[in-house]
Amino acid sequence: MKSHGLQAQKFQTTGNPIVVGRASGKSERTLLFYNHYDVQPPEPLDLWHSPPFQPTLRDGKLFARGVSDDKGELIARLAALDAVRSAHGGDLPCGVVFVAEGEEEVASPTIAQFVLEHKDLLRSNGSIWEGGGVDHDGCPGTALGFRGILYVELSVKTMSRDAHSGSANILPNAAWRLLRALASIKGQDERILVPGFYDQAIPPSQIDIDQLEALPGHEEQTRQEYGISAFVNGLTGLELKKSVFNNTCNIAGFDSGYHGPGVKTVIPCNASAKVDFRLVPDQDPDDILAKLRQHLDKQGFTDVQVKKMGAMWPFKSSAEDPLVLLAKSTGEEIYRKPFRIDPLAGGSSPAYAFARPLGISVINVGIGYPDSRAHAPDENIRLEDFEGGTRHLAYILDGFAGL
Amino acid sequence: MKSHGLQAQKFQTTGNPIVVGRASGKSERTLLFYNHYDVQPPEPLDLWHSPPFQPTLRDGKLFARGVSDDKGELIARLAALDAVRSAHGGDLPCGVVFVAEGEEEVASPTIAQFVLEHKDLLRSNGSIWEGGGVDHDGCPGTALGFRGILYVELSVKTMSRDAHSGSANILPNAAWRLLRALASIKGQDERILVPGFYDQAIPPSQIDIDQLEALPGHEEQTRQEYGISAFVNGLTGLELKKSVFNNTCNIAGFDSGYHGPGVKTVIPCNASAKVDFRLVPDQDPDDILAKLRQHLDKQGFTDVQVKKMGAMWPFKSSAEDPLVLLAKSTGEEIYRKPFRIDPLAGGSSPAYAFARPLGISVINVGIGYPDSRAHAPDENIRLEDFEGGTRHLAYILDGFAGL
Repeated sequence: MKSHGLQAQKFQTTGNPIVVGRASGKSERTLLFYNHYDVQPPEPLDLWHSPPFQPTLRDGKLFARGVSDDKGELIARLAALDAVRSAHGGDLPCGVVFVAEGEEEVASPTIAQFVLEHKDLLRSNGSIWEGGGVDHDGCPGTALGFRGILYVELSVKTMSRDAHSGSANILPNAAWRLLRALASIKGQDERILVPGFYDQAIPPSQIDIDQLEALPGHEEQTRQEYGISAFVNGLTGLELKKSVFNNTCNIAGFDSGYHGPGVKTVIPCNASAKVDFRLVPDQDPDDILAKLRQHLDKQGFTDVQVKKMGAMWPFKSSAEDPLVLLAKSTGEEIYRKPFRIDPLAGGSSPAYAFARPLGISVINVGIGYPDSRAHAPDENIRLEDFEGGTRHLAYILDGFAGL
Repeated sequence: MKSHGLQAQKFQTTGNPIVVGRASGKSERTLLFYNHYDVQPPEPLDLWHSPPFQPTLRDGKLFARGVSDDKGELIARLAALDAVRSAHGGDLPCGVVFVAEGEEEVASPTIAQFVLEHKDLLRSNGSIWEGGGVDHDGCPGTALGFRGILYVELSVKTMSRDAHSGSANILPNAAWRLLRALASIKGQDERILVPGFYDQAIPPSQIDIDQLEALPGHEEQTRQEYGISAFVNGLTGLELKKSVFNNTCNIAGFDSGYHGPGVKTVIPCNASAKVDFRLVPDQDPDDILAKLRQHLDKQGFTDVQVKKMGAMWPFKSSAEDPLVLLAKSTGEEIYRKPFRIDPLAGGSSPAYAFARPLGISVINVGIGYPDSRAHAPDENIRLEDFEGGTRHLAYILDGFAGL
């Protein structure tokens, strides 16, 4: 940040530090950029075609962990800053605030409090979030909101130690115990069985549905990308698109007993599962956590521990916001393709923690594409998207003062 | 074996070799000893209080992987052989055949065929199996039979690669898929839901029930040993003892997605589970395997792969066999405690593969005790049991010619 002319400060948190860089512009208006410098674990390592932390160019793509999510995006924004400054004789038309945190991939436990405590430093009139880029058709676009998330670890210990499986008729198996607790949480139809779970969930509005309907489905491409023949519950068309307004209960990991080669005849005494629930406006992860605990207790699973690993609230901007309209007009000028507005992204982000206290709208403009493989082996960006996304960011920075 | 005066031969198999040692005696009668030199994996290593492959004496106990199951037992038998030979001026009162295989812990895939092909070499009039020792009250005893086992690995791949969990409303989760397949196999009451599963299962006879009733329950001790407050299904008393005649479907391991520290928001594309079914007379593991496959297909789980990892047949000897009576009388003489007869052990063994083609009975006389922790961390034997078991083996060897 310093080498790009920003006044940068590092703030210690209880976890990884938050870095804020600022520069003033000719207008009082200020645009905030959010990024993060932490990344997902690179495992499984054997599925990478080049070392995850050695950026490698191949076929017009750059491969590395974080090249898309999210270090590459931060670099694109700094490049856009340089370009705009250079076009304006060294000045910026508007002020900028860059925020880069280091705990986005663990559900941003400290950023919300940080924003509340640094409202003056972060005061701004709109924000460009991480993420974004082009879709399967090469069209730019933005999401207006993100789902929230509650990430928990469920664990159970049924015995003081593992036992020989010849005693499985009398000694309790932790894998079976946890499996049954999980089965009590979600039905075969994907509907979550925790009482009160959907109480605060707002179904999609007609505007949401119209926006979803206008979006291309890319069903065949997505099926090919993941090598699947059908989507969850056999959904297609508008119902598939609308499913982003459904909640999810995803098992991110299940670990119990012996995983090695061959055979071990053991009754595992421990089992644990990492589970994330994606939440829609206006669900509250703390409320969901309390209801999950109540549900497990009521079902007799008082022995199943629930550890909160992270939480983010759902969030949704207005489709009529001037920043959204600027992103649309500049995006269509640069890419010469329609700018697509997605009412709600499936992922989660700490956008809520900025938008509410700072009173600003939030959009995504970025450098990704559908095969960027965020969170997976062979994460990558295409160089052409890096150029297009950087140009788009520069145009928005250029036009933001005049909104 | 050679250093203890046996003529030993090593036989190559498709897996680990089988070693057979023979010595003739003054009588034509021959006693066969079965042992194995392979052991269970030592994991989890952090729960051992001394290195698993460095035998360590502590508090009158010897700790190491295999010290009970089953290397220590083989040593006890060779020591008994030396003692009897020494008491008879260098001769043996009966012939002996020692068989030590190297694949017992992976369900003995080659021993059955080996026995069929070496009936002359293995010809004998009775056999002492691995296992055995004293129970919670210090009483010796034997099991008359073993349950069979079918060990399978169930696995499913729902996508070509892992995905970001923000797409969990559309992309199929392998952990959930496998969890649901497993839930279809066994009910909450532990009853197995595979059609036809119980067709060949023989319920316990009145003699079996009488023998079970005569056995001490050791319920409180077992609860303390494993730190549990209740047994599976809340069983107690005779019903708990009789549950050995129930089948089990045990999850020995479940592996899917991310297990590391912290959070990873991923939809796993792969999940696998190691599952063992304990079978009672006269169930056939190959029949059970076919029925399991049919069940999964019928439930729509055609995508769940079933890999057979091992199989053993159930087996049961007669309670009136002279070798059983000799073990009882000598055991009560040495230990000065009642000799207890267990109609069916919960574990499995390749005993069936010897008993049927060789036409011999099979008993257990050994050096273990209930806290020997076979298959678990801190496997151990008490030195006093090593002495008692060795003495008991020597007495049987001494009396076997006269039966």
